[in-house]
Amino acid sequence: MSTVSPLAVPFPEAPHIAGATPRIARAGYKDWGRCDLTFVELTEGTTVAGVFTKNVCCSTEVELGREQVVLGRARALVVNAGNSNAFTGYRGREAVEAIMGQVAAHLGCEPSDVFVSSTGVIGVPLPKDKARAGLDAVFAAPECSWEDAAATIGTTDTFTKGAVATAMLGDKKVTLVGIVKGSGMIAPDMATMLGYVFTDAAVAAPFLQQCLSAASDGTFNCITVDGDTSTSDTVLAFATGKAGNTPLATFDDPGADAFAAALHDVCRQLAHLVVRDGEGAQKFIEIAVTGAVSDESARRVGLAVANSPLVKTAIAGEDANWGRVVMAVGKAGEPADRDRLSIGFGGTWAARDGQPLADYDEAPVAEHLRGQDVVIEIDLGLGDGCANVWTCDLTHGYISINADYRS
Amino acid sequence: MSTVSPLAVPFPEAPHIAGATPRIARAGYKDWGRCDLTFVELTEGTTVAGVFTKNVCCSTEVELGREQVVLGRARALVVNAGNSNAFTGYRGREAVEAIMGQVAAHLGCEPSDVFVSSTGVIGVPLPKDKARAGLDAVFAAPECSWEDAAATIGTTDTFTKGAVATAMLGDKKVTLVGIVKGSGMIAPDMATMLGYVFTDAAVAAPFLQQCLSAASDGTFNCITVDGDTSTSDTVLAFATGKAGNTPLATFDDPGADAFAAALHDVCRQLAHLVVRDGEGAQKFIEIAVTGAVSDESARRVGLAVANSPLVKTAIAGEDANWGRVVMAVGKAGEPADRDRLSIGFGGTWAARDGQPLADYDEAPVAEHLRGQDVVIEIDLGLGDGCANVWTCDLTHGYISINADYRS
Repeated sequence: MSTVSPLAVPFPEAPHIAGATPRIARAGYKDWGRCDLTFVELTEGTTVAGVFTKNVCCSTEVELGREQVVLGRARALVVNAGNSNAFTGYRGREAVEAIMGQVAAHLGCEPSDVFVSSTGVIGVPLPKDKARAGLDAVFAAPECSWEDAAATIGTTDTFTKGAVATAMLGDKKVTLVGIVKGSGMIAPDMATMLGYVFTDAAVAAPFLQQCLSAASDGTFNCITVDGDTSTSDTVLAFATGKAGNTPLATFDDPGADAFAAALHDVCRQLAHLVVRDGEGAQKFIEIAVTGAVSDESARRVGLAVANSPLVKTAIAGEDANWGRVVMAVGKAGEPADRDRLSIGFGGTWAARDGQPLADYDEAPVAEHLRGQDVVIEIDLGLGDGCANVWTCDLTHGYISINADYRS
Repeated sequence: MSTVSPLAVPFPEAPHIAGATPRIARAGYKDWGRCDLTFVELTEGTTVAGVFTKNVCCSTEVELGREQVVLGRARALVVNAGNSNAFTGYRGREAVEAIMGQVAAHLGCEPSDVFVSSTGVIGVPLPKDKARAGLDAVFAAPECSWEDAAATIGTTDTFTKGAVATAMLGDKKVTLVGIVKGSGMIAPDMATMLGYVFTDAAVAAPFLQQCLSAASDGTFNCITVDGDTSTSDTVLAFATGKAGNTPLATFDDPGADAFAAALHDVCRQLAHLVVRDGEGAQKFIEIAVTGAVSDESARRVGLAVANSPLVKTAIAGEDANWGRVVMAVGKAGEPADRDRLSIGFGGTWAARDGQPLADYDEAPVAEHLRGQDVVIEIDLGLGDGCANVWTCDLTHGYISINADYRS
């Protein structure tokens, strides 16, 4: 791992999830002295939901995963680190199908019950022999911790990322553990955000999908490091059902709201961790948009600001340059009225209703911008739509990681 | 001016344009020892066309300019450098209207015949007293060269930018001179691309607008430095009619094609000059997209690649990272098929039909990437749509200019 991000947070205490058993091994996809193959065995009856990259040049793993989640069943997750298997044509697809077949034979399940993700260098087909030997090794490996699993799915991440939440479904307590990897579209090779949530709750697959899609919209789809979208981005949620609750199938079921809230909480934590490991990040930036014509419009405005290199460099320079925020709002393509627009930093308005505040006091703003956690408030003054979006600043570190390198 | 861009080119020999008289003066909008007010007097009968930023938080100057070009007549251009007058509410509008009134009284024309642009710091209303005194001074100033005018409209530009073209309309030679300022959404304050083309050709305003809109689509709308869009971007074309040609009103008129081509040529030269002065630019990058379902789709794919921080940092690092190009194509939201996609650099294919080339020779690509002018070829393999898009690399210089500064 490179120098740990200054925004890193420790891995949480992550308990065992009944019905989900992680193991790790070394397949040697790259010439590195670390485990790079993660295998999570899931009990019979485990349901699954997933959200995937919208990048049309997606990997075979994503194409297959989209088809598999429709079936709603899962018995295993395999994550290869060090080779993304993207842009590798039919040979890449053969490699994934070989993994699915080998795991299915081992567990006595359908190949479609085996979910595969790969992350790392692109354009090189995943070596089938290394995958085969790696799986043989991982089948024989002891159960590992979630922290070990989270470390093993990582590539250029500078710290290991996990999140935990619990919810009461009637008198049954259920636990959710999430792990994630990603830090921008990671250099030196194109990389990826991969996130996995495991819970012992019993949740029907369509409802799990409904909850995961909603949670992703407000979390993973509200973060950006550089506006670039990996060809392999994947978030999967697995529910083993071992907690013994009455299975959740709709929001009318007792505890369904609590479960959805816990899932949203885990996704939000994981999403923030990815931003905190953003390439070169020195500051964690929240963009809080209110007064938009709709929540979706607010999200788009927030992302336009979050993706603006000029806003991100201004925050890196601790410069309360609200003019750049105005510019980014204006280019979002969403309804906005210059003369109703207000911009603030950390609770202090710099401009209201389209004009700089006459009594604007920059001292508290300057103090706020010197911190690690920065909030930019944007009120559009048009409606009730709101959204929070998260990003990091754009620094010399980003350039060094992505440009000062020759493949 | 800061250190001159390594991609700078000299200002061309720009002849006098009959009917267009540039003058410069010092209004003192900023505390700098240079002229900052440009005034171009235009002969009676001059027609005008314009294209403006799509940023909805646009400046008063842009709002008024959009209304004025519809009338098609111009007698003067005023450009204020050092203060963009954006986000300044009614006081900003008053300042512009005062300038229009003062020039109209001086020339004996309508205020709507006077076009005003401003560029520089935002959020500070243009000081009316400085503008008034500056105009008094410029009315009395001698005619200056186009190079002096180009230097005076600049703010953080590192070199002075102009372009010249000629066309034969029957037996009449017409000349076009263009000047432009801009180098990204220029720091330390939000800045702007302003471009002006002056010609002695006689061109009806609607046809001039048609030619300028078409030329802008393939030139100014095909460049990007950081994806950020100024609130003040403006391109205006003025035709004085002094060359004595039969006025052009449609493409059926003799010489109309030649004029349109010359206007396109000037716009292309000016657009490239803006990229060559991109903040921190070390390399000029052309992205040549072919095989798209339409030209517009090709342009969008090209801009997605040109705006990708990962592609721009890869070129800065002289890294033939075609995987990042694949990623950027995939996220463009345009029709693309991974298995038909081909990527090349400077005429050498790295990947064809969705797979890395078995006999890919990186030596000529590495040689190409070491140069100042880099071409990325993208063939989508779907249709006949094509477009060229231009940008610069993303370097430590960009971060230094935009982040290592406190306002």
